[in-house]
Amino acid sequence: MNSFGRLFRVTIFGESHGKGVGISVDGCPGGVPLSEADFSADIERRRAGKPGTTPRAEKDIPNIMNGVFEGTTTGAPIMIQFYNADTDPSSYDNIRNTPRPGHSDYAAYRKHGGYNDYRGGGHFSGRITVGIVAAGVVARKLLGDMKITAQVLEAGGEKDAVAAAVAAQREMVPVGALVEVRVEGVPAGLGEPFFDSVEAVLSHLMFSVPGVKGIEFGTGFACAKMRGSQFNDPFVHIDGTTRTNHSGGINGGITNGNPIVFRVAVRPTSSIGMVQDTVNLKTGEPDVLEVRGRHDACIGLRFPPILESMTAIGLADLLAMSRATNATTQKPR
Amino acid sequence: MNSFGRLFRVTIFGESHGKGVGISVDGCPGGVPLSEADFSADIERRRAGKPGTTPRAEKDIPNIMNGVFEGTTTGAPIMIQFYNADTDPSSYDNIRNTPRPGHSDYAAYRKHGGYNDYRGGGHFSGRITVGIVAAGVVARKLLGDMKITAQVLEAGGEKDAVAAAVAAQREMVPVGALVEVRVEGVPAGLGEPFFDSVEAVLSHLMFSVPGVKGIEFGTGFACAKMRGSQFNDPFVHIDGTTRTNHSGGINGGITNGNPIVFRVAVRPTSSIGMVQDTVNLKTGEPDVLEVRGRHDACIGLRFPPILESMTAIGLADLLAMSRATNATTQKPR
Amino acid sequence: MNSFGRLFRVTIFGESHGKGVGISVDGCPGGVPLSEADFSADIERRRAGKPGTTPRAEKDIPNIMNGVFEGTTTGAPIMIQFYNADTDPSSYDNIRNTPRPGHSDYAAYRKHGGYNDYRGGGHFSGRITVGIVAAGVVARKLLGDMKITAQVLEAGGEKDAVAAAVAAQREMVPVGALVEVRVEGVPAGLGEPFFDSVEAVLSHLMFSVPGVKGIEFGTGFACAKMRGSQFNDPFVHIDGTTRTNHSGGINGGITNGNPIVFRVAVRPTSSIGMVQDTVNLKTGEPDVLEVRGRHDACIGLRFPPILESMTAIGLADLLAMSRATNATTQKPR
Amino acid sequence: MNSFGRLFRVTIFGESHGKGVGISVDGCPGGVPLSEADFSADIERRRAGKPGTTPRAEKDIPNIMNGVFEGTTTGAPIMIQFYNADTDPSSYDNIRNTPRPGHSDYAAYRKHGGYNDYRGGGHFSGRITVGIVAAGVVARKLLGDMKITAQVLEAGGEKDAVAAAVAAQREMVPVGALVEVRVEGVPAGLGEPFFDSVEAVLSHLMFSVPGVKGIEFGTGFACAKMRGSQFNDPFVHIDGTTRTNHSGGINGGITNGNPIVFRVAVRPTSSIGMVQDTVNLKTGEPDVLEVRGRHDACIGLRFPPILESMTAIGLADLLAMSRATNATTQKPR
Repeated sequence: MNSFGRLFRVTIFGESHGKGVGISVDGCPGGVPLSEADFSADIERRRAGKPGTTPRAEKDIPNIMNGVFEGTTTGAPIMIQFYNADTDPSSYDNIRNTPRPGHSDYAAYRKHGGYNDYRGGGHFSGRITVGIVAAGVVARKLLGDMKITAQVLEAGGEKDAVAAAVAAQREMVPVGALVEVRVEGVPAGLGEPFFDSVEAVLSHLMFSVPGVKGIEFGTGFACAKMRGSQFNDPFVHIDGTTRTNHSGGINGGITNGNPIVFRVAVRPTSSIGMVQDTVNLKTGEPDVLEVRGRHDACIGLRFPPILESMTAIGLADLLAMSRATNATTQKPR
Repeated sequence: MNSFGRLFRVTIFGESHGKGVGISVDGCPGGVPLSEADFSADIERRRAGKPGTTPRAEKDIPNIMNGVFEGTTTGAPIMIQFYNADTDPSSYDNIRNTPRPGHSDYAAYRKHGGYNDYRGGGHFSGRITVGIVAAGVVARKLLGDMKITAQVLEAGGEKDAVAAAVAAQREMVPVGALVEVRVEGVPAGLGEPFFDSVEAVLSHLMFSVPGVKGIEFGTGFACAKMRGSQFNDPFVHIDGTTRTNHSGGINGGITNGNPIVFRVAVRPTSSIGMVQDTVNLKTGEPDVLEVRGRHDACIGLRFPPILESMTAIGLADLLAMSRATNATTQKPR
Repeated sequence: MNSFGRLFRVTIFGESHGKGVGISVDGCPGGVPLSEADFSADIERRRAGKPGTTPRAEKDIPNIMNGVFEGTTTGAPIMIQFYNADTDPSSYDNIRNTPRPGHSDYAAYRKHGGYNDYRGGGHFSGRITVGIVAAGVVARKLLGDMKITAQVLEAGGEKDAVAAAVAAQREMVPVGALVEVRVEGVPAGLGEPFFDSVEAVLSHLMFSVPGVKGIEFGTGFACAKMRGSQFNDPFVHIDGTTRTNHSGGINGGITNGNPIVFRVAVRPTSSIGMVQDTVNLKTGEPDVLEVRGRHDACIGLRFPPILESMTAIGLADLLAMSRATNATTQKPR
Repeated sequence: MNSFGRLFRVTIFGESHGKGVGISVDGCPGGVPLSEADFSADIERRRAGKPGTTPRAEKDIPNIMNGVFEGTTTGAPIMIQFYNADTDPSSYDNIRNTPRPGHSDYAAYRKHGGYNDYRGGGHFSGRITVGIVAAGVVARKLLGDMKITAQVLEAGGEKDAVAAAVAAQREMVPVGALVEVRVEGVPAGLGEPFFDSVEAVLSHLMFSVPGVKGIEFGTGFACAKMRGSQFNDPFVHIDGTTRTNHSGGINGGITNGNPIVFRVAVRPTSSIGMVQDTVNLKTGEPDVLEVRGRHDACIGLRFPPILESMTAIGLADLLAMSRATNATTQKPR
């Protein structure tokens, strides 16, 4: 549901056009320095208003409501809240009964019996990922030497992602994107057997971000066409370093000490500037819809800090679990 | 760790060359007819011994130890056990100190301090997926009209997967595969907001299967190159039917009533018939390894019943959750 | 940690003397009417300022931040927040280094390395139970005909609990209390086998309330002295009605259709108006402490709405689980 | 449901008169010496056949099926199984339609639609606690210097519990019991805020044992009659040692370094040697029942190893969590 993590656990809430959005972060030890300024850089990276993104200009000021005292975390849950300011719900009146193709509108209507807040997608909006970015800031502080970076590899099939997004904005037809996440400095031995493999945990988190439709680790889908002699990564050092990294740093679901590498496919936003076929929820008959409002031409451009944060959240949890369940207190055989 | 699911919950245990493998299935209501014969077809589909698969010939006889009485489930946990019979652990002596490139050996060694059962990968072996297939048989009985089918789309880049696998076996170099899973008859409204999106739950389960390196829903990675006008699926009927199904039956993480469609990339097995570079865990120095033993030339050929079962397990849980939390008891607005 | 529940799940945050306290309620279906006015009665019952309770006068105004739209729940998480107003942290300066005997101060210091917010107990304060009461208001709306009532049976050993509390306040020595909770209209079949017995779930919730030191169901501790012929409750009707109710409505961990009855022992608050022996966390030496501040003479008086709410939260979760896993879709044998 | 624990997690299965019972233990690190002989002492303590207990003579031989290799744990799930041998299901024919007063029969029938295995209570039987004892053996190995002991304080109101049980057996009317559990050597700082207080976790586990109807920590119910000046435990040493231990070693839900002490009320078994009123599930009419079969006169006598094991399971989990989330990596303020 709206929580994730066993030891480092986040719980989100909020809607696109309600009072605000927020997140609770449980399981952060006491004694970690944290202030509102720590969030600025990542939130700015996620913020809209840049070329190819929606002109909706939320200030995105983080309010640390709980869990911090005299400049450090206390060990109690950290709750961070963002108020919505620049909302224009009137532009969503027409989607109330005619769900946007490709968006959550119809599925949410069916799930919640029509009681969902439809304005801007309500709780299904990408808006609530601002809380994820905030939680990611906390998570990164627990990761020691691990360094997480994400970059847009391409948008709409073009290597120059920003140019592709600007063109898409001009034409009012959004484009998809491909984003790569890379984690350096990963200790060997993270991940839990079977159901909590590193890939399972990270993919779970990535597919929680609205708009993600695919993920591949290391060589990924290309492996389906490969032979074992090409795919295997020979070990070259007792610290686990491999000559190649086709496996993306993960063997048997457990980190092997090499960088974690994965790519995420981001769909084009569903809000396009043309008339689309849909159904009318009131009449039950086919209808058409023209979406108004302010939208991103390429949401993928805003994804790097979101995906980095999701990665940090997952790794913080796996790291905490490894402290508890790895054979660290035993003498290695 | 080794459990998954909130209401329909499976817990696995077992090793490749230990006494056996098994699974406990919790949350199955009482009154569901179940007998050992129900498992035959799916277990046979997963079984080795066919062209392109390992000659290890486990009989894979399911023993329903608990949870069934007078031919039906009781509501108590169903525990199903398979004894290992055709084991040849001696062939693994040489991997004890020289981990196989691409396999879990090194990562498991680091995680468990060298105490892991290295024989055939121990608990990290694909062997334990026989329990998953057994749980899938139970899960499918709870899915009403939903119909799950998986098929190998290609192996080693060839459309004729079996031929590719046979060639790979002859050359002693395994190949990867691409498998598609399709679910028909899916009700709209399954999935939970944000962290338990249908994609998140299903990808979590798929990446729990040893050997999976990528997953994509609907159009998947191709969406990264698409424009919104191409990607959106226009609704054509109030039941949610869309003209196209680029989203793979899932909008905003919730099913929209169309078929769920996804593809999974399966890597070549790491056991190849040639000398590979590795490290020696005892000396800490570089070493070489030649893997013996009996192995699959294309594990992907055995994946359809495993991926179908994982899908059934995930959907059984999501269906149970939807009964509990959807707005079903309310009059739709 | 700070979350509870599998399907109806609450997550709390907040501190006694920080910015405020709050709760997120996940798993409430859409379509449930909810407004701030719904909370007034229960919050008023919990409020301080009455005879025998602390003069700290929090207004306790609930702010529904998320999850409600046009007067009904949406199916998204409901977040309710209370700002702290009447705080006087200066009165806690002296406990920073000299932990109060009987309070969480020392244990929290050890757990969180001294980074915990010590003012008024911080996150360990009974203050955050105002969020529990708010969540209980939501939970009760999902319980159909179930009716939950709690009453103080005695305080400081006296049947006239208010008089005992007023005397305790005058003498500045708080007293403990005994509170009974009763649930009428309970359907048979709630509770899950073994680890999620009704007693296990409800006791877990009750012992989450700061100050609870004992719980007994039905006849409770008296059963230790009883014989089976006295204890057993003979069935008198096919609906499960029993002649007596020594088991408190629960057999084998599952409700049998009779009222759930349990009693909870509440300790005296640890803040007493006399010099006490303690240790000094700075010097490591024995020290003494005289607690100032405004405190309850009998917190038990404020417990009925809190325990009712915890009961409602637990039953809402068990009811949701029973909808999902009971054999309701099968024809009874 | 049938699992408990976040990091040290147990999953049980089995029935009184089915093929057997068992437990899976997940989260035990690799490298812990474990063999079948380790279980003998505790299983013998739990075993029946002694004065005041049922003559049913199960040999209770533990089979370690998984998770142990070359004499030590591997880090994979440990599955331990016990086969049922001395079953006499015929003696339960008459309870099929006439549920035993005080037993789970009626509630289970309602929950599982009549499909539950009624023989000896099926999955609701105390029989499956043999698995708990096995898991407790594993858990204790992770607890360092903590020492857990349980003793029967009284049975049927008599201090000489065995004599009371023998008398009860002779009269064929079982009696209840009071059992005290004590843990020495507890580090300060175990327990998680609010919902996972030590009392919450341990009470959850204790109420999972069939037959428990009450629990109290430290002074327990007596605190309801006490004044704060009596109840508070003054600190006398910086290690947390208190002069008294009314709180049972737990303040604010967190251990304070003193012994954990709690008492558990055990009801008399419901199987009594006299005709009782019940209902007939087939006819829906009142009926009578005379229970045959072999039963305990005082199950409380067999509880010490069960309650110790449950305590060990809970503490192993809390200890693992504290390693992960306590502020141990920070310099204390």
